[in-house]
Amino acid sequence: MPQPESQKARRKRSLLLKYACLLVVTAIALLWISSATAATPFTDSPAVAENTQWVLLTGCLVFFMNAGFAMVESGFCRSANAITVLAKNLIVFAIATVAYWVLGFGFMFGDGNDFIGTNGFLLPPDLSPLTGKDYQGVFNSLKWAAIPLTAKFFFQLTFAGTAATIVSGAVAERIKFSAFMTFSFLLVLTYSITGHWIWGGGFLYKLGFRDFAGSTVVHSVGGWAALMGILLLQPRLGKYRRFNPDDKRTWRDTTFYGKKIISMPAHNLSSATLGCFILWLGWFGFNTGSTLTANSQAIAHVLLVTLIGGAMGAIGATFWSWQFYEKPSLSFMVNGILAGCVSITASCAFVNIPSAAFIGFCGGVLVVYAAIFLNKCQIDDPVGAVPVHLVCGIWGTLAVGLFSQDPSSYSWSKQFFNLDKGGLFFGGGINLLLTQIFGIVVVGVFTFLFSAIAWIGISYLIYAVSDTSGADFNVSKSLRVFPQEEVVGLDSLFAEGNNIKRLKREYIQAQRQRRSWERKYNIRE
Amino acid sequence: MPQPESQKARRKRSLLLKYACLLVVTAIALLWISSATAATPFTDSPAVAENTQWVLLTGCLVFFMNAGFAMVESGFCRSANAITVLAKNLIVFAIATVAYWVLGFGFMFGDGNDFIGTNGFLLPPDLSPLTGKDYQGVFNSLKWAAIPLTAKFFFQLTFAGTAATIVSGAVAERIKFSAFMTFSFLLVLTYSITGHWIWGGGFLYKLGFRDFAGSTVVHSVGGWAALMGILLLQPRLGKYRRFNPDDKRTWRDTTFYGKKIISMPAHNLSSATLGCFILWLGWFGFNTGSTLTANSQAIAHVLLVTLIGGAMGAIGATFWSWQFYEKPSLSFMVNGILAGCVSITASCAFVNIPSAAFIGFCGGVLVVYAAIFLNKCQIDDPVGAVPVHLVCGIWGTLAVGLFSQDPSSYSWSKQFFNLDKGGLFFGGGINLLLTQIFGIVVVGVFTFLFSAIAWIGISYLIYAVSDTSGADFNVSKSLRVFPQEEVVGLDSLFAEGNNIKRLKREYIQAQRQRRSWERKYNIRE
Amino acid sequence: MPQPESQKARRKRSLLLKYACLLVVTAIALLWISSATAATPFTDSPAVAENTQWVLLTGCLVFFMNAGFAMVESGFCRSANAITVLAKNLIVFAIATVAYWVLGFGFMFGDGNDFIGTNGFLLPPDLSPLTGKDYQGVFNSLKWAAIPLTAKFFFQLTFAGTAATIVSGAVAERIKFSAFMTFSFLLVLTYSITGHWIWGGGFLYKLGFRDFAGSTVVHSVGGWAALMGILLLQPRLGKYRRFNPDDKRTWRDTTFYGKKIISMPAHNLSSATLGCFILWLGWFGFNTGSTLTANSQAIAHVLLVTLIGGAMGAIGATFWSWQFYEKPSLSFMVNGILAGCVSITASCAFVNIPSAAFIGFCGGVLVVYAAIFLNKCQIDDPVGAVPVHLVCGIWGTLAVGLFSQDPSSYSWSKQFFNLDKGGLFFGGGINLLLTQIFGIVVVGVFTFLFSAIAWIGISYLIYAVSDTSGADFNVSKSLRVFPQEEVVGLDSLFAEGNNIKRLKREYIQAQRQRRSWERKYNIRE
Repeated sequence: MPQPESQKARRKRSLLLKYACLLVVTAIALLWISSATAATPFTDSPAVAENTQWVLLTGCLVFFMNAGFAMVESGFCRSANAITVLAKNLIVFAIATVAYWVLGFGFMFGDGNDFIGTNGFLLPPDLSPLTGKDYQGVFNSLKWAAIPLTAKFFFQLTFAGTAATIVSGAVAERIKFSAFMTFSFLLVLTYSITGHWIWGGGFLYKLGFRDFAGSTVVHSVGGWAALMGILLLQPRLGKYRRFNPDDKRTWRDTTFYGKKIISMPAHNLSSATLGCFILWLGWFGFNTGSTLTANSQAIAHVLLVTLIGGAMGAIGATFWSWQFYEKPSLSFMVNGILAGCVSITASCAFVNIPSAAFIGFCGGVLVVYAAIFLNKCQIDDPVGAVPVHLVCGIWGTLAVGLFSQDPSSYSWSKQFFNLDKGGLFFGGGINLLLTQIFGIVVVGVFTFLFSAIAWIGISYLIYAVSDTSGADFNVSKSLRVFPQEEVVGLDSLFAEGNNIKRLKREYIQAQRQRRSWERKYNIRE
Repeated sequence: MPQPESQKARRKRSLLLKYACLLVVTAIALLWISSATAATPFTDSPAVAENTQWVLLTGCLVFFMNAGFAMVESGFCRSANAITVLAKNLIVFAIATVAYWVLGFGFMFGDGNDFIGTNGFLLPPDLSPLTGKDYQGVFNSLKWAAIPLTAKFFFQLTFAGTAATIVSGAVAERIKFSAFMTFSFLLVLTYSITGHWIWGGGFLYKLGFRDFAGSTVVHSVGGWAALMGILLLQPRLGKYRRFNPDDKRTWRDTTFYGKKIISMPAHNLSSATLGCFILWLGWFGFNTGSTLTANSQAIAHVLLVTLIGGAMGAIGATFWSWQFYEKPSLSFMVNGILAGCVSITASCAFVNIPSAAFIGFCGGVLVVYAAIFLNKCQIDDPVGAVPVHLVCGIWGTLAVGLFSQDPSSYSWSKQFFNLDKGGLFFGGGINLLLTQIFGIVVVGVFTFLFSAIAWIGISYLIYAVSDTSGADFNVSKSLRVFPQEEVVGLDSLFAEGNNIKRLKREYIQAQRQRRSWERKYNIRE
Repeated sequence: MPQPESQKARRKRSLLLKYACLLVVTAIALLWISSATAATPFTDSPAVAENTQWVLLTGCLVFFMNAGFAMVESGFCRSANAITVLAKNLIVFAIATVAYWVLGFGFMFGDGNDFIGTNGFLLPPDLSPLTGKDYQGVFNSLKWAAIPLTAKFFFQLTFAGTAATIVSGAVAERIKFSAFMTFSFLLVLTYSITGHWIWGGGFLYKLGFRDFAGSTVVHSVGGWAALMGILLLQPRLGKYRRFNPDDKRTWRDTTFYGKKIISMPAHNLSSATLGCFILWLGWFGFNTGSTLTANSQAIAHVLLVTLIGGAMGAIGATFWSWQFYEKPSLSFMVNGILAGCVSITASCAFVNIPSAAFIGFCGGVLVVYAAIFLNKCQIDDPVGAVPVHLVCGIWGTLAVGLFSQDPSSYSWSKQFFNLDKGGLFFGGGINLLLTQIFGIVVVGVFTFLFSAIAWIGISYLIYAVSDTSGADFNVSKSLRVFPQEEVVGLDSLFAEGNNIKRLKREYIQAQRQRRSWERKYNIRE
């Protein structure tokens, strides 16, 4: 059990922080002195200019999705945790930027082997303004699109930030701030490795696995990491409790273990709705920008398909949740739109519009069932990140194998994205579907295990750094905030007049209070 | 008078919902099997690529206007109705998407007669990736712009969603959720029909009626539908009440019928202001994207004119409302900007910048007078949708006839938009103005009547489906929520632990309470 | 001391307002009649179209920054002042539009002398659709970029609006609404004059001073005006008070004058975080659009550099404030991102990515120290506008002289922006740095003095117009709202049922109350 930190431990940690900062700054300074940028003979063709504009603007939309995630996740939380969620969503993008710049981009798109890139770390300054084939010795997997390397890096960076953000909502309302920050850094690295397999010319790409804009690469990777996180973290205090004798039991509010599901409703649906619109808008950039070119037909088609997918996801989730809860639910409308968008992400360049409507609709229905199922399993996901990103991410990746049109239908699908044949329902046979299933499993197992190791490693680090005289190591307790902090809300960390010192002083009283909370809310351990 | 639903009636409705879903899914499945997409020989010229990028990006901005409407409308409402408004604004876009995809786009731009399009429903997959003249057998009215049909469809779809959203604010705080959803679907259809007259090559277009980006096509159509809705719905409970003997009467707070106007102030002006900025931004896309090409001069001119129009609208409304209320009003600043934008929408490609400033300024002044006038008529519009969209929509359409420059001034006005001569004040004579007036009247009468039929039809449907043993049919009562639901706020429908069952249980008590409310607030019936 | 206004004084002011409106409208009408727009032979080349699209879309992003400022500033204020801040941010853009259209653009970019432009007021309609060199007799400083003049005007207009908005947050919670509106108008004029020196071909440009996207032109100008404003206005009531005997003194909460710093925490960090994302997004437009062309390499590089700068600013501010306050601070994360963006604005086209990271990081650290320092000086800046825009604006301008790459490194830096040699650390010698320092000082002195004159002039005007029989003239008292209005919150001006009349009635009681407030909060005078 963790003990109150001594003055020494705090000083140790404070020094660690300062050294980390110093390290970053020194690394930058070293690199900056060494980076002689050569003048590059460059002529801008209209096509290059168009492609670059398109990729940069869509990248801006993807960047803006971080605002959407911040609004959706903070809106869905209880008000006493909102500031913490906002802070996590703000800092995570900065952390992802550094991680992806220093290591991730090299891992993902740099030349290397089938499993990891081993070139192009820190975005070599002499390559950065080059376009197309000029950097083929370092980034072979990116040479096909005729835009500057900086533009590609910017676009991919916004994707990495998005993947890191997905976890933030699932682990909200109970995780330590520093644990989340560290995990975000590591997640960007694992995201880059699995991304290499699919987008960086790795073994899954060579097998024929196709994920156009990242149902698997981005969303299900974020989803797996989130799922492992919430399994290790355990549910929020008071989320599942014993039934009192006078409670009315219904199927709806009983878990598979016979506990009562306590609703912890969203505190600001206005934020959440705005966030949903921002995310949907961002998704237009997410999917259409993944063309990395501005082929008119392709981008118009992908954009329309994304819109239809999201709209049908909203309809699916709205009607299904209305049936289940006997009233409309704005939360499920929001998650339905996101579910529709995630579902269509992998296949948006390959399917026709009616298929897109069907895929989105199923995504909307799935998210309702998945959210109910998870809740009944006592897996506590405050914002529904796992149903939306993991479950629909898997469904979207399967949809490529089911609904892809024959490559002769869409000129771009063969030309740019190397789709060899259509899906099961459009005459392409079962091979593509089997490859998709294989890819889902391989990426899932790797990310799930990596996340487990990362979460456990972080919790052990916290255990080791803290002054925990004699207490046993416990993953959940190390990753979580003190129980009384969770009860009063994580924002107490940010509040005026509160600081870590005071929280430590309160810890001893909290030990006593904790036992009473455990009795009252019947927390499982 | 409606009676509490029986268990049977609820089940009947629930079945209806399920069948509706099934129908949609089956229709999609049928279409999807039948849609063989042929490979299309397509070469992207730089011009096509530029036009497509422009139309898609501006379409994204128009899409984002839905977020703006959601923020403005929910912010202007009282807090106990905010979630309902948000949910309406979110689902309405999904509904509009389906309605416009299945029927609306064919009605509006498909070839047919002068009154309605009869071709091109469900966006024929074999046409969708074609550009320009290749689909002239089906969509003759769209063949002039060299961009893929999918891009045009996407852009027009976002417009249809916008028109549907306008109604949502006006009928807020009292309408049944399902009534609004059904009306939205029908509104998209009538929008498409009147749109065919003007943009789809119908009789108004042939007569010379010009509405560049939709002051009439979008805004006043939405405004007419909203006006009919609020006339049939009646004011919110307690909005207009008898004067108590000790109330001070002023001209400002007395209606023409001698009632006292009770202010029901906005609950979140932060949302409303953000929404206003989002709408203004979206309007840049709304007006400039309506060029459907990326003619540099035209888009730069239109964008600037839209900015100036909105800014002058803000100034007009701010000063006039400051004079009237003796203090500044943020609500009127917001509505002034929207009014300026609506006013300039029809003429933005045809007028010079000083005219735009004048048109916007007048729009801002008009919206203040219109809001005061409506309120004194006891027509209750919680967010000011009718003053903004209807009154300024009419003014904007007239402005084309007054301020249009001679077509020789702007190369694009003749070339792309077939403007034959200037307006009354710029040497073009009175003909254009008279045509504009004719168009306003025709579209107004049609939409107003169609809306009446639609609203009454929906209310009868609700009356018929509900278990209303012996009660008389009353439009307002069928469309409105139960009085006690309105008093506690419509969000009770969405609230945790509330559902339709419980609301029914409370109905009998509410009958008694209602009479007391009627006495207290002096509701006119 | 100001006295309650008499009925006469109020009527006088009301007439003044009406005349001002009339004047504007008449000016517009005169111009509008006189403006015969000639048809212009115009052929759109692909390059022109691309450039125009880019500049217009990035201009839209800059426009949207106003929403970001509104959200950040209102979120950082106390809730009883939020509506006032929102209203200021909304109307200021409308005022800036008019000021810049009528005078500013001519002052800034019109041909004239080295100190001010004397041509091109009111955007001459015959020039507006021309591209590139065709308007070289009037706007020589803009002829290099091949886009329509309207596009340039639109882009520059959004910048002027941004500069005006910066002041709004610093003077929040105590300034009179009308004083702020008047100052905004004047600020746009001084912004245009100093802008002429740097971007309009004036003397600083000729000396070799370079400020790519406006660290000095926009941000530090806004910052100087804000600093003078808050020096004249004095701190908010109760911000700094005497220590009570039982207060614990720490270095952190003691000013240099021995007063206690009272924290007045942000009321809506959800708004502020959203605003921060919007501003960061807008900055991508701010910096990349300043190329005024769509050179692929340049825009991709600038965009990436802006992203990295903001991210490193966030990291710098987060860690440094964490060290100082012993807990993370969302406010400093937000201001750190803004600080990073401001810091990189001047040099974004000239520095490499590691330098950008370093510049942004230092900006983030600087903003923490500057905020603490200002607070200890008893200079009360509710939202941190001075640390962010002034301090980092100066640092960013210096960074050009320190970190600029040799012009041979980036093809665009010589070609488009006439950078002659690199900065001190990249072999260019100390000359560029000295020129930058000279420019910072000259612009700073001019803006600071101009602001002083403007603020004092406005306060005297208010003093003269008000009915202040015999009271002494006091700048702070004339510019500030009545004390009791400040104590109940400035939103009382906007609140239902309140108006200036009632506030006057309450004034006499307030005189008495004021003395008690002064005793209680120990206000320094």
